[in-house]
Amino acid sequence: MSLAHAYAAQSATTPLEPFTIERRFPTARDVAIDILYCGVCHSDLHTARSEWGPSVYPCVPGHEIVGRVSKVGADVLKFKVGDIVGVGCMVDSCQHCRPCAQGLEQYCDNGMTGTYNSQEQVSRANTLGGYSDHIVVSERFVLRIAHHEEALAAVAPLLCAGITTYSPMRYWKVGPGQKVGIVGLGGLGHMGIKLATALGAHVVLFTTSPNKAEDALRLGAKEVVISENAGELAIHSNSFDFILNTVAVAHDLDPFIAMLKMNGTMVLVGIPSSPNSPPGAFGLISKRRSIAGSMIGGISETQEMLDFCAKHNIVSDVEIIKMPQINDAFERMLRSDVKYRFVIDMSGLS
Amino acid sequence: MSLAHAYAAQSATTPLEPFTIERRFPTARDVAIDILYCGVCHSDLHTARSEWGPSVYPCVPGHEIVGRVSKVGADVLKFKVGDIVGVGCMVDSCQHCRPCAQGLEQYCDNGMTGTYNSQEQVSRANTLGGYSDHIVVSERFVLRIAHHEEALAAVAPLLCAGITTYSPMRYWKVGPGQKVGIVGLGGLGHMGIKLATALGAHVVLFTTSPNKAEDALRLGAKEVVISENAGELAIHSNSFDFILNTVAVAHDLDPFIAMLKMNGTMVLVGIPSSPNSPPGAFGLISKRRSIAGSMIGGISETQEMLDFCAKHNIVSDVEIIKMPQINDAFERMLRSDVKYRFVIDMSGLS
Repeated sequence: MSLAHAYAAQSATTPLEPFTIERRFPTARDVAIDILYCGVCHSDLHTARSEWGPSVYPCVPGHEIVGRVSKVGADVLKFKVGDIVGVGCMVDSCQHCRPCAQGLEQYCDNGMTGTYNSQEQVSRANTLGGYSDHIVVSERFVLRIAHHEEALAAVAPLLCAGITTYSPMRYWKVGPGQKVGIVGLGGLGHMGIKLATALGAHVVLFTTSPNKAEDALRLGAKEVVISENAGELAIHSNSFDFILNTVAVAHDLDPFIAMLKMNGTMVLVGIPSSPNSPPGAFGLISKRRSIAGSMIGGISETQEMLDFCAKHNIVSDVEIIKMPQINDAFERMLRSDVKYRFVIDMSGLS
Repeated sequence: MSLAHAYAAQSATTPLEPFTIERRFPTARDVAIDILYCGVCHSDLHTARSEWGPSVYPCVPGHEIVGRVSKVGADVLKFKVGDIVGVGCMVDSCQHCRPCAQGLEQYCDNGMTGTYNSQEQVSRANTLGGYSDHIVVSERFVLRIAHHEEALAAVAPLLCAGITTYSPMRYWKVGPGQKVGIVGLGGLGHMGIKLATALGAHVVLFTTSPNKAEDALRLGAKEVVISENAGELAIHSNSFDFILNTVAVAHDLDPFIAMLKMNGTMVLVGIPSSPNSPPGAFGLISKRRSIAGSMIGGISETQEMLDFCAKHNIVSDVEIIKMPQINDAFERMLRSDVKYRFVIDMSGLS
């Protein structure tokens, strides 16, 4: 057991404050990691404030973790002390259900173990996340990071925002010759543009904010459509192979469905607090279109994504903060006042 | 040009009555067909009564047509006089768009020509359907029928109800080892049970009517679940590969989505007059599930379905009526008082 410096919420209504937590002594298959950077995901805020149901307190958020290996268990094969590694949204899963057997631990039928506010598989202890100076994680859920060291802060958001957008694009086979829509330009959307572009697609951003157009083009989009302009939408009717919808507030799905061509799919990766307006069956039926959902990605696919990003020099656009600034960062995130992800520099916390 | 005896609606509010219509003289690529049987589809009623937007009158419904070839054009290669043939929901399409090039004429980007209440490709004349003694159709949209002659009345509904359920099951690869749900036991649902069973799946019927259980088992279902019973639904949570939802009245999709396993798809083939309640994004995201739509099938796939049905001795369960009974049949159909499809025997009409 070791003591870790962390920032925790003690209740749904109190800010995050310094707190000391315990990390287990690394077992034979565990890797101990000194955390260098941790990205700030909207889920962190939802969970700290019990907005997705009651959280367990103290709550230490953070699941976009980049760090350096400080210790490895006797049976660890893939990592050695000094390696730069990542930990994403999961730290364990049952390892024996059908999804786990397929390397899709995020869909574990017995419930994956989230990096925070979740239950360890055996002890059922509450998990505590990356807003801390170190963490101990099973080797199986630790990722290699091949990016240059100076890019590491901007790598952190790949562990959640990156894989959340990469996984559906791989499953639905986004590639060259395809026209791909990204709905919404935030933490997820800006990664969606970069990744779809790197995969070879012609990328179009849909946004309600005309002032985001310039940035979208800089990130790789070829076109920007103001999604409240029916005329602009009509031009793109029946033309998209795939649409990644990153919007996490309730909205009307039908205008986007109408832009899919035959056999096209729109994938939702945001969970609005109230349901989207009901999609009309006709839009789906008339062109054999689909609406689907997707959640992060499996460990092997997360590794594939990190390697793909290293090869293509892809990182997140980030604003680096220090741990004491987290409560301000939450408030700015609520106002979408970040381009496009806060990342906490953990140096000085311990 | 020839004159055909038909039954037509002269307005949205008048019953179908005898009416004489004109059929074109067969061109070099046309087949003239003496109609033996025509199935009665719910679309016939919706269109006769302008329930899907204003129809063109006089309106002659009917798109589940079985008949005998009476004449062929000079260039017709696939059919000869005397052949037993079928015509389904389409009689033409643009033949040059991407869907048409793939044999998916039902999704024609320029609009397929429906068998009734639609526009011919060149003349833009209103099409008149199968509630008549003969019809003239381009060879390309005529199907071979290999069933025994005594089964022909029960073959007619395959041309719409059959292909509507067969096509999505083929596209989403329903087969042995799979657990498949059919929602609703009517004209479409009863074909769904028969076809999914013949494709080798373990079939479960979801119905709100306990009195339909016995019939579902007779048709081939292995289990029947009363879909208003949350306890019964819970047993089947996360277990279905594929669900075919044939219900055409607005309902809550979420309980069915929750029964799909990872990567599972629910396909809608009914269009409710008001939208279904909005599906929650979480149900889709948490297991990478999809909701899709599907509409009839292409001509080559319709032929495949007819040949599959002939080989497996599959026909519809029908109640045969004569043309003057059509208005009563419409009323009974509205009360779901038919097992499971009315078919009009055209003998005596001319």
